[in-house]
Amino acid sequence: MSREIPYKIYLEESEMPKQWYNLRADMKNKPAPLLNPETLQPVTFEELSGIFCEELAKQELNETDTHIDIPEEIQKFYKMYRPAPLVRAYCLEEKLDTPAKIYYKFEGNNTSGSHKLNSAIAQAYYAKKQGLKGVTTETGAGQWGTALSMACSYFDLDCQVYMVKVSYEQKPFRREVMRTYGASVTPSPSETTNIGRQILKEHPGTNGSLGCAISEAVEKAVSTEGYRYVLGSVLNQVLLHQSIIGMETKIALDKYEIVPDIVIGCAGGGSNLGGLIAPFMGEKIRGERDYQIIAVEPASCPSMTRGTYAYDYCDTGRVCPLQKMYTLGSGFMPSPNHAGGLRYHGMSATLSQLYADGLMEARSVEQSAVFEAATQFARVEGILPAPESSHAIRVALDEALKCKETGEEKTIVFGLTGTGYFDMFAYEKFNDGKMTDYIPTDEEIAASCAKLPKVN
Amino acid sequence: MSREIPYKIYLEESEMPKQWYNLRADMKNKPAPLLNPETLQPVTFEELSGIFCEELAKQELNETDTHIDIPEEIQKFYKMYRPAPLVRAYCLEEKLDTPAKIYYKFEGNNTSGSHKLNSAIAQAYYAKKQGLKGVTTETGAGQWGTALSMACSYFDLDCQVYMVKVSYEQKPFRREVMRTYGASVTPSPSETTNIGRQILKEHPGTNGSLGCAISEAVEKAVSTEGYRYVLGSVLNQVLLHQSIIGMETKIALDKYEIVPDIVIGCAGGGSNLGGLIAPFMGEKIRGERDYQIIAVEPASCPSMTRGTYAYDYCDTGRVCPLQKMYTLGSGFMPSPNHAGGLRYHGMSATLSQLYADGLMEARSVEQSAVFEAATQFARVEGILPAPESSHAIRVALDEALKCKETGEEKTIVFGLTGTGYFDMFAYEKFNDGKMTDYIPTDEEIAASCAKLPKVN
Repeated sequence: MSREIPYKIYLEESEMPKQWYNLRADMKNKPAPLLNPETLQPVTFEELSGIFCEELAKQELNETDTHIDIPEEIQKFYKMYRPAPLVRAYCLEEKLDTPAKIYYKFEGNNTSGSHKLNSAIAQAYYAKKQGLKGVTTETGAGQWGTALSMACSYFDLDCQVYMVKVSYEQKPFRREVMRTYGASVTPSPSETTNIGRQILKEHPGTNGSLGCAISEAVEKAVSTEGYRYVLGSVLNQVLLHQSIIGMETKIALDKYEIVPDIVIGCAGGGSNLGGLIAPFMGEKIRGERDYQIIAVEPASCPSMTRGTYAYDYCDTGRVCPLQKMYTLGSGFMPSPNHAGGLRYHGMSATLSQLYADGLMEARSVEQSAVFEAATQFARVEGILPAPESSHAIRVALDEALKCKETGEEKTIVFGLTGTGYFDMFAYEKFNDGKMTDYIPTDEEIAASCAKLPKVN
Repeated sequence: MSREIPYKIYLEESEMPKQWYNLRADMKNKPAPLLNPETLQPVTFEELSGIFCEELAKQELNETDTHIDIPEEIQKFYKMYRPAPLVRAYCLEEKLDTPAKIYYKFEGNNTSGSHKLNSAIAQAYYAKKQGLKGVTTETGAGQWGTALSMACSYFDLDCQVYMVKVSYEQKPFRREVMRTYGASVTPSPSETTNIGRQILKEHPGTNGSLGCAISEAVEKAVSTEGYRYVLGSVLNQVLLHQSIIGMETKIALDKYEIVPDIVIGCAGGGSNLGGLIAPFMGEKIRGERDYQIIAVEPASCPSMTRGTYAYDYCDTGRVCPLQKMYTLGSGFMPSPNHAGGLRYHGMSATLSQLYADGLMEARSVEQSAVFEAATQFARVEGILPAPESSHAIRVALDEALKCKETGEEKTIVFGLTGTGYFDMFAYEKFNDGKMTDYIPTDEEIAASCAKLPKVN
């Protein structure tokens, strides 16, 4: 018996997950191990815990426990802004005149504006527990930096953020949100690190990239007493924390006996996608149920759809461990005309393995089509979406329109990772008809991938 | 038997109000009638419906029906972003170490960033129902304009917004949100109206004010076929629609058998305050229960605490009806250094009457103290509040700290009307230590009030 489905499904506090789900423990083919950039041997716990907090280094390497308890303090913080609603897009369905049933998990109802806070609070908690003074990190669009600033402020930790230069300049509001939460923000590349100085010398006038900013933040952390580095995407630990998204989604769906046919998420480094799909992919791997799972990436930075599956550095400065992933090469810099986020050259090792194993699909979309979808969605569903999230919206709309043609009543679930309130320059460009698309040529990608490290 | 109270109380869809509450019908002393600016006689329905939609003109004059049905279409829209959560500020209480119990009704979880959408969707609905082509309005900080753009886009109505010039320039992001929803936005004063041209001539280089922008929007509406004017605050109809805030709050409190001692709201024109307090004030008027009700206004624009209770024009251009209210004079322009919103010279007639009758208190607070409270709140509760809402936070903190001294376990409810994501220039000023306070002198206020119309 199916109950009437409300516009928004909120879990009760008592229904909220008390454990994260560690998808890797259920994977038959585990992701390849991280390699030490100096020895090119698998990294040890000791090596990792020089960069990350000990507990997070443990989580990074944990391939055996399917579930990990969420500490009480983190559960408490989660209750301030979670559960996130699972929204039935009734108005959108009506507007599209589609027989498809569309749901989205909306992670934007917190000041960081996105799902990033789910991992930020966990990482800040473990840093505090270990007695550290502070953490360093990088941020692109600023969502992660904002999230980390909020988390550090809550636990009274120092927070030093390297912000990709182009975002620092184009998104002064994000910078001020971080400062309001007490963080110090430095545009990257900067003169505060060796790597930064070197990159500035080689590429004067560069817009910066996530890869550069990661290198600077890592260097700063390992060279400063009482500091560790934290990262908002790509890593196994991040996907673990983000599994809260998928678990809440699954519980909400189960409550109303809804079974999705398609699960869609945008993918930059993989934090949202990995979290959203985790329990669905778990069922798929265990052979309990099949789902069509789609990763959506920008056509201007197409790591899964056009990259190489190989060991590569996670950062431009090559100070981080190497990971086996779909990559465009750690030197790949997305075109500056790309405003839609998801600018990372690689992809989470876990998601890369799942993709390599044929357990999910990947599609790339161009940014003008993404902003069209964003605007259409905003006008009907009220929420002004982040450009990143709008990649998933684009494909959800495409799938819903296919259903309109075929008459299929598919159930589509997508991740609406955040709001676009700090992306209005990009919207302005679109509103003014000045947004253009950029797709790298095969030669560009080949040239960048030719510089992949020789371990492969 | 009291149940454990969650961090956030969400009503079920089925518990959401299906009627608005018309507080005026329960008031013993009714607010004085609006006067026609030409005849100085009470306005008639016919006169009002030249400015407003017919149904809204009816609501404006309705002093008899305590409850008015919310049309199905509006209920449907409400379900996309409501119910708004009633949040128990556990973390704030702990941080303050107060025995007080603090709750806030959070209206910021929608793209307009505030409660304004509650009335915008109603006004757009009635305009559409009447077969109009479009509506005109003014906006200050941009919350109302954004809300109206969203509402008009939903009902496919043209939307023309006059935006106070200083906000238009300082808040380009708001402008782009409105444009994304298809609205046209004009900085006010402008050359597009007689009033605008006159004001520009008399005050070249003016920053504009809500009063000016109202005059321009009204002139545009009455001189354009198929258009009417809509307003986001001050009016009885707006307070009626905003009663959804208070009703949801009351239902949530009742569900957990919570009885507030103090209800606090910020007050510019009165839309949030009037809506939040409506059901509590109703009980108070009917002698069923007593509450301490506090209106909070900026020290730089202190209509209730330092204004005159008299008939005055609602707009600078004196084209709108007159209303009896607490006012600083329709020519009063708040200091440009004031960043905290709530810049209106007058106050809702209903709230003015309640204040005159001693049914509620008013306090004024200075903006640096407001931003201190905002930052403290943001760091503990996660939500970065709008400067307007932060006036209420300031007084809620003050009251909670009093409880800490006295040991009283008071229950405090305040309205958190919205988020400050588009107010980061103001936060930047505060973060940089450059925020100053401005309090008008008695002479300034007296000079402005000396120009009140002679009907009094």
